[in-house]
This record gives sequence, C-alpha cells and structure tokens, in this order.
Amino acid sequence: MREPPLLEFRVGLPAWVAPFLGAFVDPLTTVAARMRLTVALARANVELGTGGPFGAAVFERESGVLISVGVNRVVPEHCSAAHAEILALALAQRRLQTYTLAAFPQALQLISSTEPCAMCLGAIAWSGVYELVTAATDADARRVGFDEGTKPRAWKRALTSNGIRVVTQVMRAEAREVLDLYRQSGGEIYNG
Amino acid sequence: MREPPLLEFRVGLPAWVAPFLGAFVDPLTTVAARMRLTVALARANVELGTGGPFGAAVFERESGVLISVGVNRVVPEHCSAAHAEILALALAQRRLQTYTLAAFPQALQLISSTEPCAMCLGAIAWSGVYELVTAATDADARRVGFDEGTKPRAWKRALTSNGIRVVTQVMRAEAREVLDLYRQSGGEIYNG
Repeated sequence: MREPPLLEFRVGLPAWVAPFLGAFVDPLTTVAARMRLTVALARANVELGTGGPFGAAVFERESGVLISVGVNRVVPEHCSAAHAEILALALAQRRLQTYTLAAFPQALQLISSTEPCAMCLGAIAWSGVYELVTAATDADARRVGFDEGTKPRAWKRALTSNGIRVVTQVMRAEAREVLDLYRQSGGEIYNG
Repeated sequence: MREPPLLEFRVGLPAWVAPFLGAFVDPLTTVAARMRLTVALARANVELGTGGPFGAAVFERESGVLISVGVNRVVPEHCSAAHAEILALALAQRRLQTYTLAAFPQALQLISSTEPCAMCLGAIAWSGVYELVTAATDADARRVGFDEGTKPRAWKRALTSNGIRVVTQVMRAEAREVLDLYRQSGGEIYNG
C-alpha cells in the first residue's frame, strides 16, 4: 500500500554553517562586510558541495547584528523553493516569531549574493524586510545557465513600490566568481 | 547574550489534516472531485482557525492518486512563505525525493483554491509540476483584501511558456465563498 501524504517537512542549513558563523565577529557595521560574509557563504556552499552558488543573510540595518543566514539547498533538500533568500527570511521570521519582519523594532536588511528570481522577488515583498542589497545581477546568473523566471520588467520598481529599498551590484565581481566556480565545478543547473 | 542564528526550520500542516484526509476515498478520478477536496481544505483551515483561506493539493493527473496537500500557514507558522501551494509542492517533492516533480514518471497536477500570488507563480514554475488548476481568481482574493503581488500581466502565458498547462475557474463560486467566510470571521489579512 502507498504511504499517506507527508504532513510536515524540515529544511536545514549544512553542518558547516555553525562553525563558519563562529569565525565572524558580530555585528558587521559596513554593508561591504555583510556582503563579504554572504558571498563567502555562497562560495563555501559550492566548495563543500552542499547546494547552489547562492547565499543570503538578514541583518539589523543600523547595528549590523546578524539575524539569520541562508544558502541554496534545492538539490540536497529535494526542494525547488529552498533558495538562499527563502531560507534566510524564513529563519529570521521563525527566530523573531513573526510572519512579517516589519513588526520587528529594528529595520532589517536582506543581503543576497545574486538578484532575486521571480519566486524570491515575490517572497521578499511578503517578508516585511526593509531593504534588499544584492551583488551579482540576474544577467550574471543567466550567463551560467540559471533561469531567473518571468519577473516584471521593472522588478526593482515593484519592490520600491512595496516600500522596500533596493541596492544592487555591491561586490558584484566577487559574487560572479562564485557563479563561475559553480559552472566550472560541474554543479547541477536545476532551473535550466 | 543574543542566541545564535537558527540553522533549520520545520513547517507543518494542522493536526486535523490527517483525519480529514482519512475521510476521502483515494484516488479521485475527476478534476471536480479534486477541487472539492482542495476547497474543503481551505474551508476547514478557516473554520478551525489554523491559517488563511487557501488550500492546494498535488495529484497524479491520470490516476487521481493524491500525493500531497497544503493549507495556508503564514500566521501560525510565523512564515510569510507558508502559502498553500508552497507547502503542497514542497511536501510532494520531499515525499517523491526529487526537487523537480517532472522527474516523477506520472504527470503531476497542482490543484489550488485560488490563482497564485507573485511568489507562488515563481514557485510553480520551478516545481516541475505538469498542470495548474485553480478556482477563485486573483481578483476574488484582492476583493477580500489580499495582495497578490506584482505579477507579469500575462502570468498564465508565462506558465504555459514554461511548459505548464493552466486551467482556471473550476468551482470558482465555492472557493470564493471560503474567501468571504474568512473576511466575515475577521481573519487576519497578512499581505494587506
């Protein structure tokens, strides 16, 4: 007989994330330092073979206190929604016990190593985050074979009209190197 | 001292789902019967106060075997991404041990009580599902106060260009009643 439908699922970060975070000094006062951490997460995810070449993190925008991190876990978790941004936002909301980060007293900033795909664009709009900061562009992601999906042409404007600030191309070259590394290492292009 | 970032999270369906599914005879050979189950999930979620007025389910398209179900869990799970479609797709992928439902030998059908928001539209495109069938329209959802987000104007065409069939307005009136019930019962509009 066929088993009954599953009633819950768990999504987790790789085992290396806890010691990795232990090596960073919190808080990170500059946006550059926050992006460096985020790109380093994406790079470690490729080098250690634990998912796609994408990292994300949520910080208190003013203080630089780290709230959560995410890396891409689509292939190992058998979950096409397990993008780095989805994990970082969900882990921040769970930790702060709110479905909208806008309810938290401090403005929160999502740092992401690449511009969001169509799904994450929608997820960011629902998350209550105050600001999005990205490194590699969606063109960079498409160049190595990833599909970013059908996004509204003016996707940055769509976020700003939802009250979310958007800053792009911070440390773009470093994030692009991680995308190239993934392609060179023969990583699976799951939304090809 | 502040606690360290969370490294995993769990998302689950309400406790009533297991006995609820036990009352249905599997497989469901008609699309109408599948939608009736899905709208009933949405209605129970409202009546039992376990989330928003949305349900979803994944079926084998030919046989009508049920693979997974989802209901909206945004408020109780403190997770803005916990839409019914996201849960149903993630639970199907986890059960079938694949990040793309297109790898499963049978074509799979996502039945959803309402047309997808911007986030779920992207998630459906990544899921590998063969067909989407919906009941209430996005205009119906907006009418009771939900924001569907910034979707491409031709969102159905965007899915079909990804190879996903789209069938809309199956049992629309029944699904709209559940949206109205939620509004009348004072349910929280989380993406208002």
